[in-house]
Amino acid sequence: MKVKGNFWIEIDSKSFLGKGRIELLKKIDKYGSISKAAKDMKMSYKAAWDLVDIINKLAKENVVEKISGGKGGGGSVVTEYGKKLIAFFDEAEERYKQSLKDIEEFLNKEI
Amino acid sequence: MKVKGNFWIEIDSKSFLGKGRIELLKKIDKYGSISKAAKDMKMSYKAAWDLVDIINKLAKENVVEKISGGKGGGGSVVTEYGKKLIAFFDEAEERYKQSLKDIEEFLNKEI
Repeated sequence: MKVKGNFWIEIDSKSFLGKGRIELLKKIDKYGSISKAAKDMKMSYKAAWDLVDIINKLAKENVVEKISGGKGGGGSVVTEYGKKLIAFFDEAEERYKQSLKDIEEFLNKEI
Repeated sequence: MKVKGNFWIEIDSKSFLGKGRIELLKKIDKYGSISKAAKDMKMSYKAAWDLVDIINKLAKENVVEKISGGKGGGGSVVTEYGKKLIAFFDEAEERYKQSLKDIEEFLNKEI
């Protein structure tokens, strides 16, 4: 028997962060661009932007911010607060995976 | 922030038991009848029977068995093994809920 599962974080009973959104944020951080991140995720720019908008509105501080000007004509960055969220989500995911393993061990021992 | 999630048990990479299937098994145990359980779950008899069939085929022992004859013209029972599965699933669910709470506490403390 294998124990599988998934988890996500809600704020005000609305979905805030899950695996997919964290992946999107990591790609925005990598590329400095929502459109490049969207392309890499095989999402439309609009879908990615809508997710970023939901995340920014639910979070107590901005997670992604537009930067304008410069050589590349601007882009988007994940804020320090956003990077902190990513790091703590990753840590939460590790803890979550461990708890699924613990439950799996319990079930396989008992049944 | 609230941490939400769900989990299920797989055997041979196939979904074996989750919250919905356990609920169905509990109702079969209560009513001694797949059709009454199906009705209570607002499922078709066929859908309920197909789930029971999947569960029985994946499990190492029968979980639900038909009984024939008697006053009511037969019915279905959850076997002792099936009852054990229900009990351990419930215990696994308690542990799971606790681990989500622990992760929630961790996140709310850190972020």
